[in-house]
Amino acid sequence: MSDLADALRVSLDGPWGEVRETARRQIEPGRFGPPEVDLPIEEYRARVHDQLLDLASLGFAGLGLSTDQDRTDQGASVTAFEMIGHGDLSLFVKAGVQWGLFGGAVAALGTAAHHERYLEAIASADLLGCFAMTETGHGSDVQSLRTTITHDPDGDALVVHTPDESARKDYIGNAARHGRMAAVFGQLLTADGTNHGVHCVLVPVRDESGAAMPGVTIGDCGSKAGLPGVDNGRFTFDQVRVPRENLLDRYGSIDADGTYSSPIDSDGKRFFTMLGTLVRGRITVGAAAGSATRNALTLATIYGLRRRQFAGPDGQDVVLLDYLVHQRKLLPAIARSYALMYAQNDLTRTMHEVMRAGDAAEEGARRRLETRAAALKVASTSHASTTIQMCREACGGAGYLSFNRLGKLRADTDVFTTFEGDNTVLLQLVGKSLLTSYASQFEDMNVVETVGTVVRQAGAALLERTISGSLVQRLLTGAPGRDADDALEDRGGQLALFTDREEHVLETLAGRLRRVDRTDPRRAWETFDAAAPHVLEAAQAHIDRILLEAFAAAVDACPPGRPGTCWDSSPTCSPARRWRRTGRGTSNTDACRPSRPSG
Amino acid sequence: MSDLADALRVSLDGPWGEVRETARRQIEPGRFGPPEVDLPIEEYRARVHDQLLDLASLGFAGLGLSTDQDRTDQGASVTAFEMIGHGDLSLFVKAGVQWGLFGGAVAALGTAAHHERYLEAIASADLLGCFAMTETGHGSDVQSLRTTITHDPDGDALVVHTPDESARKDYIGNAARHGRMAAVFGQLLTADGTNHGVHCVLVPVRDESGAAMPGVTIGDCGSKAGLPGVDNGRFTFDQVRVPRENLLDRYGSIDADGTYSSPIDSDGKRFFTMLGTLVRGRITVGAAAGSATRNALTLATIYGLRRRQFAGPDGQDVVLLDYLVHQRKLLPAIARSYALMYAQNDLTRTMHEVMRAGDAAEEGARRRLETRAAALKVASTSHASTTIQMCREACGGAGYLSFNRLGKLRADTDVFTTFEGDNTVLLQLVGKSLLTSYASQFEDMNVVETVGTVVRQAGAALLERTISGSLVQRLLTGAPGRDADDALEDRGGQLALFTDREEHVLETLAGRLRRVDRTDPRRAWETFDAAAPHVLEAAQAHIDRILLEAFAAAVDACPPGRPGTCWDSSPTCSPARRWRRTGRGTSNTDACRPSRPSG
Repeated sequence: MSDLADALRVSLDGPWGEVRETARRQIEPGRFGPPEVDLPIEEYRARVHDQLLDLASLGFAGLGLSTDQDRTDQGASVTAFEMIGHGDLSLFVKAGVQWGLFGGAVAALGTAAHHERYLEAIASADLLGCFAMTETGHGSDVQSLRTTITHDPDGDALVVHTPDESARKDYIGNAARHGRMAAVFGQLLTADGTNHGVHCVLVPVRDESGAAMPGVTIGDCGSKAGLPGVDNGRFTFDQVRVPRENLLDRYGSIDADGTYSSPIDSDGKRFFTMLGTLVRGRITVGAAAGSATRNALTLATIYGLRRRQFAGPDGQDVVLLDYLVHQRKLLPAIARSYALMYAQNDLTRTMHEVMRAGDAAEEGARRRLETRAAALKVASTSHASTTIQMCREACGGAGYLSFNRLGKLRADTDVFTTFEGDNTVLLQLVGKSLLTSYASQFEDMNVVETVGTVVRQAGAALLERTISGSLVQRLLTGAPGRDADDALEDRGGQLALFTDREEHVLETLAGRLRRVDRTDPRRAWETFDAAAPHVLEAAQAHIDRILLEAFAAAVDACPPGRPGTCWDSSPTCSPARRWRRTGRGTSNTDACRPSRPSG
Repeated sequence: MSDLADALRVSLDGPWGEVRETARRQIEPGRFGPPEVDLPIEEYRARVHDQLLDLASLGFAGLGLSTDQDRTDQGASVTAFEMIGHGDLSLFVKAGVQWGLFGGAVAALGTAAHHERYLEAIASADLLGCFAMTETGHGSDVQSLRTTITHDPDGDALVVHTPDESARKDYIGNAARHGRMAAVFGQLLTADGTNHGVHCVLVPVRDESGAAMPGVTIGDCGSKAGLPGVDNGRFTFDQVRVPRENLLDRYGSIDADGTYSSPIDSDGKRFFTMLGTLVRGRITVGAAAGSATRNALTLATIYGLRRRQFAGPDGQDVVLLDYLVHQRKLLPAIARSYALMYAQNDLTRTMHEVMRAGDAAEEGARRRLETRAAALKVASTSHASTTIQMCREACGGAGYLSFNRLGKLRADTDVFTTFEGDNTVLLQLVGKSLLTSYASQFEDMNVVETVGTVVRQAGAALLERTISGSLVQRLLTGAPGRDADDALEDRGGQLALFTDREEHVLETLAGRLRRVDRTDPRRAWETFDAAAPHVLEAAQAHIDRILLEAFAAAVDACPPGRPGTCWDSSPTCSPARRWRRTGRGTSNTDACRPSRPSG
């Protein structure tokens, strides 16, 4: 057993397995976990603040924020965040705000002077900061933020201002108590009144004593449905002046005489490029959602293996996990968690490579990374919500007691589905991105009616693969025909079916949207709106396919199973038989433990 | 508009509409609502305790607990509880424990002496009590409780005892702080060692000063994922002696010389009869889940009508509810809430009639009531969980703030899916009950293979209807053929399809189970276990059909719509067109407000 378990852990741990091992070795239980009793909100916030400093003292943030390219390891950084997701999620979010979002904005949107001046203090948590993007009136639609950042040549300053209540910065982590500086997003205006679109400026919000800076009004979002240790708050700026050099000016700068310049001419492209550099936050949220889900599944599985209810044929109460309906609750969720972990590891590696390439990364690679990040953020966080909920219910009344953590895991992860990108909005982004790459394949084709046929003939090659074409090809070649009964039981057959589905949904969607009369904006809007559920379906089909691919690639990379183990579907193992017969269930449940070799 | 809204309210309010109106008139906002700020657990418990006394002072409990048959109005009582479900759910649960469960046990399982001695004090909340059924080791399987209630002829007492930790009473509401007496369920043993099965005995657990009675150890379940105002706790009994007359002896009594007698010979039948009398609690939980869900939907709908995001074709930000994907989140949930409310009203009326008939109620009516109560408890509470969650997400970050209540509604209702009957266990109960009534129709048939054919020919008559056969018949007769395209758009066609589905699932399930070799207990158990997902599917098909029937009957009972209103599908109304074209969406969204008459 133990070398099988080890092999499984190594497989699941992925490319930054040693980061996980270090976290497991170094961190004593409880140090970064949630409190054992309910704490009043201010005590909770103080506790998490102290945990953040403790984490900083371990050098936690250096990997992701170093100015030294050789010390930087973005994959390790995201993996370390993922491990914090096994602890108190308030700490995860607070650390994510400080290092991922605030630090990430300075690193990605700032230039050398900002890096030299701030990154070390941010990494050490000497400078605590906020990421002030969302406003009361605009969350998903960042491009329409209403905060203004106006250059005033008189004194060469930037004036940050909140024109009305809907432009107030809202839900901002680290704002209510601890943040001393904020990375504030707003419309950058030059003195001639020209709006250069959304940019980000560093604004001191508290002085050394913790008092609000002049012109800055700080509010407190108060109690939330979860994450009690995160001090979310609000900022209102009343003509707050900061030096011009506080503008994070990698993608747009203003010189001393007030002239704006940018390496990217198009306002739209600049905006999406800037947002794109912040993709790490979204990836990290998906990763931590995975950690929390695995915590919940571990708790519910242990409970399911110990709890007994209703007498079985031998008069003994039956173990919950020996009931098929209980297996059907937990085991598909465990399988999906495995698939998500493989896909997430792959995403982390891709992000690492794209970030390491820096400006040299090709645009297609960046775009694919963003689509993949959005897709997996949706998949991981919605899986977290439904699975942790299922785990709570699978533990009955015991699952409702705070002592058993499931309620807290559920409440803390709840907002993951709507922050760092609302899942519905992200699914639309994924769907549109699939359409765009699809359209680019066919943009020179005029005969709309033939597209469907061509796509079907071209087959899988049209879809962006997460795994190597040769592996896909090998699996597909070995697969039974997709109409054969046993296609459902064969990995290649499954891939073929998932690919067919995604292609079909995409081609019907593309056909539907091509008929839009784009000269009539209202009708075009209505047609797109009517097709939105179809777009979501395409995105979901895409997510399902890339999860299956990630799982298939990981299984392919595993060493072959040993004869006689459950993994090899021993003919005497009843769950394995059920699996072969129905394509459901699992061949590796606790129920078959007696037939496993003891080695 | 206003008379349309009035007509809708009258229709939804159901048979005890005047109870709802009284609640709306009498209860000022805030009096029975949740606190506006987070409270420490003990303050919260004290607050809800005081609200309970306040509620008692209004005579709230008299309708359900009176010894006077003429004053009793069970339908009004359940409806009043449902209205409390619009307030703080901690109060709803605490009141449910006190009056529904504890009071209900005394009323249903006790006899005249108990009623005279206790009911008034319970109704007035002078005697606060607990319902001590669940044990640490047994929740769903009540028949296997391990607490013992042993008659000791020496002193003519009953000795209540907890043999080991798994027999400890657990999760008991009102136990940790306020309960002075508990209705304790356990195995009743006479001095000769005979076990007469589960009975209920009243045990004083605290003295006037609030101290635990001798031999009673009281524990505290502490913080939970929700319902912070309910003081759940634990009882361990160490040979606690109570007078023999404390046995609630309607279904089983012990006389002075220690002889047991019961009006029901069979232990199994007696047990299920006793449990069956407690059906009101389950019905009340479903009702309050409905109230909480409607609160959440109201909040999310108001938000969806006010919140705007992303510019539309006219440059203005678009109202969320004008997006089809947002409509598809909220509107089906609203429609299901309507259907559930109609079904729940119907259930309340049925319960009222069965309880009013008392011992005269025929057994089939009781059994149908229990099945219906289980089905709707599952439907309402699972709808509450998924819908309140959806509402939270549909409100984004605002939905996560405690101020906006959605997180609390979600957390407080969470346990509804697993208390008063775990939903998975209840679904199995529903499925088995459907099979039993099904089997009784065919028990004298030998040719198994012909059953399917016969059932299909016999058609709808085999299924238990919630609405009159004549209405169903009228709708079915007017319906297009069930294979016709427009069957989906016709109420009768929909009923036919739902009926077909339930019949099909039931007949295939029955066929599968008839092949079981009942002489081999292990194989029989395995076959039943393997069929359990099929049983759940049958129960779900049944739930869907009775919800549709309830909705159809309610629509049929409504006055006809006025020409020109949206309800009449004005041809210029775009949502109505979409509805007719797709069978989805709704003909009455806010989006069509401009085309409504102003009257």
